Amino acid sequence: MSNIVEEFNAYRSKMNEKILADNNKIIKRIFNLDTNAFAEGALDKRTKELLGLVASTVLRCDDCVRYHLEESHKVGLTKDEVAEALGIATLVGGTIVIPHLRRAYEYWEALEEIT
Amino acid sequence: MSNIVEEFNAYRSKMNEKILADNNKIIKRIFNLDTNAFAEGALDKRTKELLGLVASTVLRCDDCVRYHLEESHKVGLTKDEVAEALGIATLVGGTIVIPHLRRAYEYWEALEEIT
Amino acid sequence: MSNIVEEFNAYRSKMNEKILADNNKIIKRIFNLDTNAFAEGALDKRTKELLGLVASTVLRCDDCVRYHLEESHKVGLTKDEVAEALGIATLVGGTIVIPHLRRAYEYWEALEEIT
Amino acid sequence: MSNIVEEFNAYRSKMNEKILADNNKIIKRIFNLDTNAFAEGALDKRTKELLGLVASTVLRCDDCVRYHLEESHKVGLTKDEVAEALGIATLVGGTIVIPHLRRAYEYWEALEEIT
Amino acid sequence: MSNIVEEFNAYRSKMNEKILADNNKIIKRIFNLDTNAFAEGALDKRTKELLGLVASTVLRCDDCVRYHLEESHKVGLTKDEVAEALGIATLVGGTIVIPHLRRAYEYWEALEEIT
Amino acid sequence: MSNIVEEFNAYRSKMNEKILADNNKIIKRIFNLDTNAFAEGALDKRTKELLGLVASTVLRCDDCVRYHLEESHKVGLTKDEVAEALGIATLVGGTIVIPHLRRAYEYWEALEEIT
Repeated sequence: MSNIVEEFNAYRSKMNEKILADNNKIIKRIFNLDTNAFAEGALDKRTKELLGLVASTVLRCDDCVRYHLEESHKVGLTKDEVAEALGIATLVGGTIVIPHLRRAYEYWEALEEIT
Repeated sequence: MSNIVEEFNAYRSKMNEKILADNNKIIKRIFNLDTNAFAEGALDKRTKELLGLVASTVLRCDDCVRYHLEESHKVGLTKDEVAEALGIATLVGGTIVIPHLRRAYEYWEALEEIT
Repeated sequence: MSNIVEEFNAYRSKMNEKILADNNKIIKRIFNLDTNAFAEGALDKRTKELLGLVASTVLRCDDCVRYHLEESHKVGLTKDEVAEALGIATLVGGTIVIPHLRRAYEYWEALEEIT
Repeated sequence: MSNIVEEFNAYRSKMNEKILADNNKIIKRIFNLDTNAFAEGALDKRTKELLGLVASTVLRCDDCVRYHLEESHKVGLTKDEVAEALGIATLVGGTIVIPHLRRAYEYWEALEEIT
Repeated sequence: MSNIVEEFNAYRSKMNEKILADNNKIIKRIFNLDTNAFAEGALDKRTKELLGLVASTVLRCDDCVRYHLEESHKVGLTKDEVAEALGIATLVGGTIVIPHLRRAYEYWEALEEIT
Repeated sequence: MSNIVEEFNAYRSKMNEKILADNNKIIKRIFNLDTNAFAEGALDKRTKELLGLVASTVLRCDDCVRYHLEESHKVGLTKDEVAEALGIATLVGGTIVIPHLRRAYEYWEALEEIT
């Protein structure tokens, strides 16, 4: 099942490269900001990844959820911590979040299988 | 084509089970509320399913639409009634709802083929 | 407190008139569709008003909620029926719906005070 | 890769036909309006397609984006013009738009390969 | 009625100043991008303002609509052109856009009264 | 200016009371969950308040933002921490978040004036 991690990352990298090769200044800067916004600051990286995860979940963006799950996994957040964040997202965003919750759990499981 | 019904339900059950096994109190209670909210009350089950369907459609949640189409089908709502509800959803939610309408019609057709 | 009903309707009428006077064909037809969509059909008017109310609530459109509360009140829907529909909307749409729920309750109360 | 264009259009046509065969008056009229709204008027067709594209992108509707990319391509909009419109959409709609940007770039590439 | 223009701009300026004084790098850069994205490029400023207006309208952000109405007015877009863009926004975004349409018409009227 | 804090809380309390007096089981339980979800758990209260704040901000719910700003203030989060969270929300949610950012800064200022 860990294929979903590889597939997602391969597609994401390939298309990001094409987008950035396009030299659209606004889009390039937004991509750049995206890297900076999640760097250590007044808040630590762990908290920021959870913020990115919850924002992505309530806005129901599966690819964004996957990205932040992966980053959350890398910085050592536990499943309990991630699940609690997802619980808040489901409460705030409502039951329409549940299908994304299913895919988030599936992706987290795949992330754990790789390591 | 009825495969889309089976596939959807199989994935949905499998992942719901994993989510509930996780013992996250908030998520479990939201799942629980979801069952209660659509039970007969001041409004009958048929009306409630249509409410769930329209809410899911304007929020453009395909899996939620599928779920409520299936429940609507079970309680005996006709295609005309469902189509009228979807028409209201498309008007209120705008033409961005149309792609979800296509998938809703496809799923309803699959539901009718099974029975 | 019934002022909020009058104020809302006065502003709504005044601006609708200006918009329609503008002779924009697309907008005029959308306004027209809006009237037709909620007329008796395969589903009765009461059910349709509840569908409009729930769609408006999960999309968090206060003015749309007010309009459908008023229509719901006119067709004789009870507070219990309306509250059950709003409960479904809050569950599906999440706790971000709650501020709109407060304003919906306030408006319903104003509607009951007039009659 | 141009398959994604053919597949999208085949599914879209097939399901639109079924929806329209259903004779739901509201839905039929909305489909009709959709054709009229993008016809030459005070604004030319090129501008209108870009408006449709940006609206679809910020609302994160992949199928709508595909449709308007295809129309944009037909009326001769260049990749630079389309990319600038998508840049505005990403800025206004936020980084959750990025996954849709990836798919938009992929679809545009497929459109260019066909011709 | 032109007060709504002055009030909006006064509040907007006052709060933007406070936000920018705060030296949050991410927010400052987003504000900066916002200026750049609407500058003349492959698309002219008029088209870009209409794109900003439609994006703001379908996302139902009254303050963003006001801002882009004002910029549209400054670059000489006519009421007919703006109304056609708003018509597309209402069709794509659905009837929940209508309350924002009312406020957009009111603001445009106020803009015309000043000049 | 601290009036906006008092006014918000007075209206919020008054209407919540009325809603809860209504004995709608679904709504009551959602209110109840809301209290539980933000209690200390695998994640501490400070992190959870930031999650609630970011979720509310990207979903552009001013009243929810106010509530979580107030809770954030109570648990001792600094302006820098809150601003960093709001920066992430603005990046993820796009420039349509900016009007809500203005009102968030205004409310935070009012909170600081009281104490």
